[in-house]
Amino acid sequence: MALETPTRARKRERPGSKNTAGLDLDELRKLWLKPLWLVLSDAFTDEPRTQIVPHIWKWSDVRPRILEAGRRISAEEAERRVLMYLNPGLNGAPGATQTLFSGVQLIMPGEIAPTHRHVPSALRVVIEGNGAYTTVSGEKTLMRPGDFVTTPNWAWHDHGNETDEPMMWLDGLDMPFVLALNAMFYEELGDGYDIQPVTRELDDSQTRYNRGFRPHRDAFAGNYSPILNYRYAEVRETLALMERAGDALSEEEGVMLDYINPLTGGPTLPTIDAHAQLIRPGEHTRAVRDTASRLYFVLDGRGASIIGGQRLEWEKGDTFCAPTWAWREHRVASSDAPAVLFSFDDAPIQKPFSFYRRQALLEGDGHQSSL
Amino acid sequence: MALETPTRARKRERPGSKNTAGLDLDELRKLWLKPLWLVLSDAFTDEPRTQIVPHIWKWSDVRPRILEAGRRISAEEAERRVLMYLNPGLNGAPGATQTLFSGVQLIMPGEIAPTHRHVPSALRVVIEGNGAYTTVSGEKTLMRPGDFVTTPNWAWHDHGNETDEPMMWLDGLDMPFVLALNAMFYEELGDGYDIQPVTRELDDSQTRYNRGFRPHRDAFAGNYSPILNYRYAEVRETLALMERAGDALSEEEGVMLDYINPLTGGPTLPTIDAHAQLIRPGEHTRAVRDTASRLYFVLDGRGASIIGGQRLEWEKGDTFCAPTWAWREHRVASSDAPAVLFSFDDAPIQKPFSFYRRQALLEGDGHQSSL
Amino acid sequence: MALETPTRARKRERPGSKNTAGLDLDELRKLWLKPLWLVLSDAFTDEPRTQIVPHIWKWSDVRPRILEAGRRISAEEAERRVLMYLNPGLNGAPGATQTLFSGVQLIMPGEIAPTHRHVPSALRVVIEGNGAYTTVSGEKTLMRPGDFVTTPNWAWHDHGNETDEPMMWLDGLDMPFVLALNAMFYEELGDGYDIQPVTRELDDSQTRYNRGFRPHRDAFAGNYSPILNYRYAEVRETLALMERAGDALSEEEGVMLDYINPLTGGPTLPTIDAHAQLIRPGEHTRAVRDTASRLYFVLDGRGASIIGGQRLEWEKGDTFCAPTWAWREHRVASSDAPAVLFSFDDAPIQKPFSFYRRQALLEGDGHQSSL
Amino acid sequence: MALETPTRARKRERPGSKNTAGLDLDELRKLWLKPLWLVLSDAFTDEPRTQIVPHIWKWSDVRPRILEAGRRISAEEAERRVLMYLNPGLNGAPGATQTLFSGVQLIMPGEIAPTHRHVPSALRVVIEGNGAYTTVSGEKTLMRPGDFVTTPNWAWHDHGNETDEPMMWLDGLDMPFVLALNAMFYEELGDGYDIQPVTRELDDSQTRYNRGFRPHRDAFAGNYSPILNYRYAEVRETLALMERAGDALSEEEGVMLDYINPLTGGPTLPTIDAHAQLIRPGEHTRAVRDTASRLYFVLDGRGASIIGGQRLEWEKGDTFCAPTWAWREHRVASSDAPAVLFSFDDAPIQKPFSFYRRQALLEGDGHQSSL
Repeated sequence: MALETPTRARKRERPGSKNTAGLDLDELRKLWLKPLWLVLSDAFTDEPRTQIVPHIWKWSDVRPRILEAGRRISAEEAERRVLMYLNPGLNGAPGATQTLFSGVQLIMPGEIAPTHRHVPSALRVVIEGNGAYTTVSGEKTLMRPGDFVTTPNWAWHDHGNETDEPMMWLDGLDMPFVLALNAMFYEELGDGYDIQPVTRELDDSQTRYNRGFRPHRDAFAGNYSPILNYRYAEVRETLALMERAGDALSEEEGVMLDYINPLTGGPTLPTIDAHAQLIRPGEHTRAVRDTASRLYFVLDGRGASIIGGQRLEWEKGDTFCAPTWAWREHRVASSDAPAVLFSFDDAPIQKPFSFYRRQALLEGDGHQSSL
Repeated sequence: MALETPTRARKRERPGSKNTAGLDLDELRKLWLKPLWLVLSDAFTDEPRTQIVPHIWKWSDVRPRILEAGRRISAEEAERRVLMYLNPGLNGAPGATQTLFSGVQLIMPGEIAPTHRHVPSALRVVIEGNGAYTTVSGEKTLMRPGDFVTTPNWAWHDHGNETDEPMMWLDGLDMPFVLALNAMFYEELGDGYDIQPVTRELDDSQTRYNRGFRPHRDAFAGNYSPILNYRYAEVRETLALMERAGDALSEEEGVMLDYINPLTGGPTLPTIDAHAQLIRPGEHTRAVRDTASRLYFVLDGRGASIIGGQRLEWEKGDTFCAPTWAWREHRVASSDAPAVLFSFDDAPIQKPFSFYRRQALLEGDGHQSSL
Repeated sequence: MALETPTRARKRERPGSKNTAGLDLDELRKLWLKPLWLVLSDAFTDEPRTQIVPHIWKWSDVRPRILEAGRRISAEEAERRVLMYLNPGLNGAPGATQTLFSGVQLIMPGEIAPTHRHVPSALRVVIEGNGAYTTVSGEKTLMRPGDFVTTPNWAWHDHGNETDEPMMWLDGLDMPFVLALNAMFYEELGDGYDIQPVTRELDDSQTRYNRGFRPHRDAFAGNYSPILNYRYAEVRETLALMERAGDALSEEEGVMLDYINPLTGGPTLPTIDAHAQLIRPGEHTRAVRDTASRLYFVLDGRGASIIGGQRLEWEKGDTFCAPTWAWREHRVASSDAPAVLFSFDDAPIQKPFSFYRRQALLEGDGHQSSL
Repeated sequence: MALETPTRARKRERPGSKNTAGLDLDELRKLWLKPLWLVLSDAFTDEPRTQIVPHIWKWSDVRPRILEAGRRISAEEAERRVLMYLNPGLNGAPGATQTLFSGVQLIMPGEIAPTHRHVPSALRVVIEGNGAYTTVSGEKTLMRPGDFVTTPNWAWHDHGNETDEPMMWLDGLDMPFVLALNAMFYEELGDGYDIQPVTRELDDSQTRYNRGFRPHRDAFAGNYSPILNYRYAEVRETLALMERAGDALSEEEGVMLDYINPLTGGPTLPTIDAHAQLIRPGEHTRAVRDTASRLYFVLDGRGASIIGGQRLEWEKGDTFCAPTWAWREHRVASSDAPAVLFSFDDAPIQKPFSFYRRQALLEGDGHQSSL
């Protein structure tokens, strides 16, 4: 599907963008007209340009701040007690990349977030805490560390924590993309404090859809996965099998799986593709780049990545981002345990329009530099 | 997708098929010409006609005969030690319906069936025995009672029994359909005695594909399910959840699930749709008919069905068939345990061409007669 | 999509089908059981077997007989005044191949065939006559020589001849396939003599759908082409352009186009793919075979084909058939004008199930023998 | 596909965005963290917010300025001699809406634009001039007034004017969307002055693909239309047929057709849907809104529209835009001739992700106010 060849270099000097040709630009401006040639070389660039820069949000920095926020502001006051992860290239605008929002959310014991829905799709990956719940479309799930929980476009959802420890999870949403398309809708249930009834058993969707079955004459018609919670314990078992099997190893990505919608084989959310990958001790993956932007979350272990030439050291709980078309490679030291990275990207936004391109670094030893 | 309305009755008397119009039929016959009007009313019937009749193959009849065959002929001599289930309407031609083949296969301890492949797709459901294996495309599975094992079109496969008890399973194939299209190919591995190597772990495909994951950049491109074995234990758990949930109950089919391909949500084999349904004590399902032909296999329990007006009493191990457009309904007595029926049908052959129609019996109490 | 490699030869002698193993076959027969091994080598053949044989129906034979039928039997008496083209391998059963019906239909001046519909899809290609009509789903078209007219599954249709010359066309239907699946439904409008109203202009569907447009928020939802009539004049222009362009030439098929559904790019009818191909003077196409069965109708010119080793000489108006997996090649003498062959095949029935295979003859000069 | 119901009003007051909870925002800023609750009510709005405002670019304003640019700057100096249509809400950034670029391009007699390609897809609609050409992927087309010409993502293309009159056309591109995804690539052929060879006849793609045919075993695999030029003369004929037919009339859009890809039935470009609609004298269309943004170009006639409450009077050659979720309705006075509007929108960008919603104004007489 994707072009894997590099583009050829342009030979001709692009015309300067300074030639106003003696036109009365002020008059044109009043008519909302402007010569294209003044901006042409800024817009039609040989390769993608992006404001997004590689960045890492260290869990050791984030954890005390979100817990402090938990002490200082109630869930009701905050509506959503989230610290956003801002990309340094975006001048303070929400967004970890140009299309993806990320942040850390805290639910303290006894708190609830009332039922609401919105056009942006959301995913959660549990960082700390054990047993707080998310309810989506009448199904409740108890969330364990590493679990991946989906909340599709326009699905009623709410959260709560009936345990006695704080629950912290990573949020991932396509909110910047929805805003860029001017397509936001948002709604609260009832008077804004209502909670939807739980109408399904725990693990209903897992049992119903994720064993190779679906109900006969099933009415489910969403373009997202019917599975509410993908358990991390199963991710680890499958990555372990794939590692033993050897046949799924990729020079570029280690041992990697995609989370899928079992009714289509495609991504769990229509705008976001999610993955888990295991990097083995001593492994240094070949550099690869594509036109997607993405976030990584460290589920287990520690290591380092080079993203667009910039070295990021990471350990469990950290989150980091990789911009469009930036080379990225990962390394785990031989003396360390295997690392597991969760990641999510916006490739599904690009693929329907044939924008998506991917390239492996074939020169040298396939690395930007030694790690 | 399907038309659910009955067709209107035709008002005009169809012209007789006797009017040869004084044409010289012998001369026409020599030129391989024939008036259509002589056969028109036999071909263009208001509703489907079929040679297939409802029939039940009782396990109490079949079991001693297949075991006797096990004593009298070696696996090597027989190549496939199968007793075919013949539909009484087909004059001895292979086929349990016009498109579906069924039969019982026996593998004695120590026997093997060498590796081969063919255009017909096959499914197996284990009747008796525990732990004999099927290997398909390098993956081996140990088969337990009630397990549903797929063998797709043109996939190398072989069987063996390394246990000390006989293994008997139900075979289901689309062989009559393949033959009707003149599309058969068949091949044996090597010199016909060869066995393919096992290249994957036990439960590789279950672990890899059936938990909401698939390998990243997966090369699997079949139009069939990548899952080799759908475990009966999981079928029972899902049927139990669906029964408790209540929302999946259907007047017509009890609690019913479809086996699916987790990469498409569609049937596990492109020509055959497979299902499991639980009929609760005291339940008498509403009569329904469709243009598919199908076989039922009794996984558990006992009860009775009326198929096209004919009552069939069944118990565990029995197999019975239902022709095209025959009303079918099921009953389990209140004093009995729940019954579980496995079934497979040829609806996927009809649906791409918009041939498939389905109708529920709305008159009276929805039953053909009391059971 | 299709496998293009030949299958490997099987090495092992298939076990004899004579070994009854001392089983009581009569007793088994009463239980509708039969050993598979008695029929195994007849069913699981290395390559397809077919009853269908290559055959040509010469227009010089057919034309006087259908005109005689026109004198001897009224349209009302005949209901459909058609002489079927029977394949000599089918023992008189309707069918030009195992899945496809063909024949010649005659409508005399002033005659009509009242409105009816049926599950089989039909196509017509005009042989002689000019201006008789077919009405399908409220749209009427005036038929010219070589025009290709579709009549989809369950669409109301009727025919009439308001000109003063006989209209003769080739019929093609998937009727044998529908009957093999036991999926026939048939219905007449009203009391069987009714004619549906014409609710659309002449060439409505051509104008509406076949210029790269469709109505906004169009409700058309059929799985067949919305185009009623594909004009032969346009076929000739496109074949001429393709011939001049050179880039569309195929060693195996000359200059060939497919008739398509402009809403999907797929075949005009879900079960039948239709084509027109131009064979240039002096061209001798490379032999090819596939698992589809097909009929050819000579739109223009004369030449010869070798089908499964059998030479058939043809000229305008003739119809001939090619069985599954039979090599086929065509030749037009240098001294002749270009020939144009219309053909239709059942490949769409095989492709959804991955049954379809195709192979070009690569040995020697790509020909079965000299023509 | 689209939700047609209005969203319910939210009952609860959204929490103020002023509560910093005593957190040290500066410290958080240095860590690229920020409380979500400070921006929540700006981001998660009940209904879409957009910077885009309705605006009309009058041809009487634009025409003299683009012709003046033609006198003052050479095609080579300008690279692309285009006056961009800027949306007044975008502060001078390129874009007629948040996703769509538009402008007017001028090619003077004797000029050429060398061959290049880029990720943005482009469409052209001819405003003035007759017979200048665009070549795309080796096919050249001579452009007539009203013709709609496509230039897909990454297709080599160039333009030239071998006539003796200026050629002016409307450009439409998805450039802002491509830039928002950081997915731009751009390339020039050879040394930047090269012209691709013309390898196909005039009207090759029209003849080959747009008559219900495609080449047998066609290799075309783009996700865009193979048709280069959709002729305005044919648009007018089809709109006229649809008007006569009456069955295609829509209260909301007059008589409207979509330009389609004849291999899929979908839009001609994967990101942009294009339409032509005829508004009859005296017709005042019912107001409708959807989440797409769009541009209108007046092909013929004159009238007025109310877009988001703002009245725009238009005549032949004018271009105007309608933002997301703004009510839009059109009127042509009884004393005028029918008007024909060309329009293009970004709905295909929203539909794969289920963002697209549409609503008709059902209150009152279906109008925002009298026109």
